[in-house]
Amino acid sequence: MTVMDSSKAVENIYLLVIVTLISVLQNAFFAHKVERECKSQSHTSAFERVSCANRNCMDAYPTFLALMWCAGLCLNQAPAAFAGIIYLLVRQKYFIGYLGQTSQSTPGYLFGKRIMSFLFLMCIVGIFNYLMGRYYGSDYKEYVETITNAASALLLIP
Amino acid sequence: MTVMDSSKAVENIYLLVIVTLISVLQNAFFAHKVERECKSQSHTSAFERVSCANRNCMDAYPTFLALMWCAGLCLNQAPAAFAGIIYLLVRQKYFIGYLGQTSQSTPGYLFGKRIMSFLFLMCIVGIFNYLMGRYYGSDYKEYVETITNAASALLLIP
Amino acid sequence: MTVMDSSKAVENIYLLVIVTLISVLQNAFFAHKVERECKSQSHTSAFERVSCANRNCMDAYPTFLALMWCAGLCLNQAPAAFAGIIYLLVRQKYFIGYLGQTSQSTPGYLFGKRIMSFLFLMCIVGIFNYLMGRYYGSDYKEYVETITNAASALLLIP
Repeated sequence: MTVMDSSKAVENIYLLVIVTLISVLQNAFFAHKVERECKSQSHTSAFERVSCANRNCMDAYPTFLALMWCAGLCLNQAPAAFAGIIYLLVRQKYFIGYLGQTSQSTPGYLFGKRIMSFLFLMCIVGIFNYLMGRYYGSDYKEYVETITNAASALLLIP
Repeated sequence: MTVMDSSKAVENIYLLVIVTLISVLQNAFFAHKVERECKSQSHTSAFERVSCANRNCMDAYPTFLALMWCAGLCLNQAPAAFAGIIYLLVRQKYFIGYLGQTSQSTPGYLFGKRIMSFLFLMCIVGIFNYLMGRYYGSDYKEYVETITNAASALLLIP
Repeated sequence: MTVMDSSKAVENIYLLVIVTLISVLQNAFFAHKVERECKSQSHTSAFERVSCANRNCMDAYPTFLALMWCAGLCLNQAPAAFAGIIYLLVRQKYFIGYLGQTSQSTPGYLFGKRIMSFLFLMCIVGIFNYLMGRYYGSDYKEYVETITNAASALLLIP
């Protein structure tokens, strides 16, 4: 592999890699919390809660990674990485919220549905755009990317 | 990245992306089931069952994704995506079957072993073919792809 | 896709694919252990232990895969794959150790922190090197790769 090829390969994914690294740091933070509660087995309910919050986050993690990378590869990495960052913030809030709750009123199993839907839509648009370009020769990629960049700002609305 | 490069990148993975999207939809369906049982905490055994079925499916999910993408990238995306679709059908059947069972006779922890083995074999053949081409200069890729396409039809046999 | 393109795509990832395949085999081994304990429900504590060990390993699996692939794509596949192999050995030892322990003294939730950190550092160096090359035109990739290859040997120190 020449140096040229290699940096070209990194060019289209480096934002996705950065978000993945941040998510790994967050996973490590969650796991560290579980580890600490696991060691000090004084409060069983606290351990149960942190373990459950961690498991819910980990259950959704592969789905999130797959969606973010597909959206980034098929369409454009910038809005995908941006949505990824927002998802990580939502996840952090969910985890902290889970720990603070009493066991009667835990937040649900799901979170970040809107961001997942946005990434899902990005993938579909990307695939659709590719198929349009392949069978009809038309290419709206630039317009689509502009619209996607603008639409990703909507995720900031709480 | 020029438009040309980009659509070339999508060309070799779009079937895999589509299968990944379908698997994400299925994950959302499973998670929604868990969420609903979690909210209505009337039947504890029903919640236990749906939660366990979901966890078994989620445990195998990263392994499945990794295998499907490796098989698709190393050899050929069409049979890998086809095997992925079959796997999702098997997983759906497993999940539904798990919910319907009484707790005495739950289905096992594993499912879709045959499809996983097929994807695993595809990866090995792809790597082997690449190494053959690199060290001996021979390239049987076309033959191998034809055989793989034909062999993937065998997965339909129940 | 021409044959040339295809084997070029495989060239930069084949070591990563091989490590992924080995990790899949290991996952299957873990899952098989769980399946067997699940069937023979004589020793509940044994089932609990193997199930917990499997879940801890599976929780960390997507994080590991993401890190290894990012490190391999951003910088160099050889040290990333080497670190991956070491991680799999550590995981095997952790799993076996978990089964043998009495419930009073289980090993912690986390394992393989040093290898994860190494892969994390590789990703950061790769991204940093790419950004340096992009904005300053300097390229230290070859030096970095040599250093990384040498540094990966340090993982062998117990």
